[in-house]
Amino acid sequence: MISGFSGTGKGTLVKRLLQEYDNYSLSVSRTTRSPREGEIDGVDYIFSTDEEFRRLIDENGFIEYAGYVGNYYGTPRAFVERQLAAGKDVLLEIEMQGALKIKEQYPDAFLIFVLPPSFRELKERLTSRGTESAEVIEKRMARARDEIKYIEYYDCLLVNDELEQCVKKLHEKIQTYGR
Amino acid sequence: MISGFSGTGKGTLVKRLLQEYDNYSLSVSRTTRSPREGEIDGVDYIFSTDEEFRRLIDENGFIEYAGYVGNYYGTPRAFVERQLAAGKDVLLEIEMQGALKIKEQYPDAFLIFVLPPSFRELKERLTSRGTESAEVIEKRMARARDEIKYIEYYDCLLVNDELEQCVKKLHEKIQTYGR
Repeated sequence: MISGFSGTGKGTLVKRLLQEYDNYSLSVSRTTRSPREGEIDGVDYIFSTDEEFRRLIDENGFIEYAGYVGNYYGTPRAFVERQLAAGKDVLLEIEMQGALKIKEQYPDAFLIFVLPPSFRELKERLTSRGTESAEVIEKRMARARDEIKYIEYYDCLLVNDELEQCVKKLHEKIQTYGR
Repeated sequence: MISGFSGTGKGTLVKRLLQEYDNYSLSVSRTTRSPREGEIDGVDYIFSTDEEFRRLIDENGFIEYAGYVGNYYGTPRAFVERQLAAGKDVLLEIEMQGALKIKEQYPDAFLIFVLPPSFRELKERLTSRGTESAEVIEKRMARARDEIKYIEYYDCLLVNDELEQCVKKLHEKIQTYGR
């Protein structure tokens, strides 16, 4: 499970692991929110109706799920179990509360927290995207400041300053965890 | 300036920088506390009387100083200024409040925060030293949890998981800062 502040490059790290090594499998979240432009069903999220989502909750179909700003988000259980049974290392890009809920059920799960080289650089990265207002960036920074207190629960802290090095180190850490 | 929780190996990193590269110079703190067994005057600290320390405060002889559990600790100004003038990179191993006070006066100062690979590993390192009681270890962990909120002010976050790599990266980061 890979968590980290918005802007630390978690998504890129996950993509690189999937591209470069064949032992990984990505868990895609199910959500009731509408697709944004460019998002692909089954790739970015499994887009779902409220009814479907609620039925899956009732059937214990999620490892964890949560409501956020009027929408549901959940990690489908069947996919994860099937991939684990097939010997795959399942990757989840997930926020902290979700990660900690999963760790309770899967104590062997490996929790990685990706940190920016510095908070200033995090702010610069968010700013340079050019897609978000100063207000949104400030909200994300405030959230990062708040989330930092959870890093004590993580199995691995990783600073993402140089992508290639970071991908290699991440792979190494995952492969040697618990051995 | 190098800060980090107790047990993250800051002291070892500083020693290695001094051994391996000749551009560094170590700032030694002055203190009014008594030497502990094995501590050498002028190496671990400059041990000082209360009178001497107060006189130096009056003479603006410290970049920063603080009281802690009945004793004074301070960073002598003259040494730092002399070394900087000679073109040296002055290393300070210093706790966060001190580091932030110095940053106000020396905005070019480079603040490095050394993190453990994980909090669990930090606890293991503290425990394996075998010199501290469970209670003291718990206090240090509580302090780490509290100090984590200051990392947003640091110029560089560095995880110390593999010493050799970390020394090299630290040197590289210091040498390229602001260039």
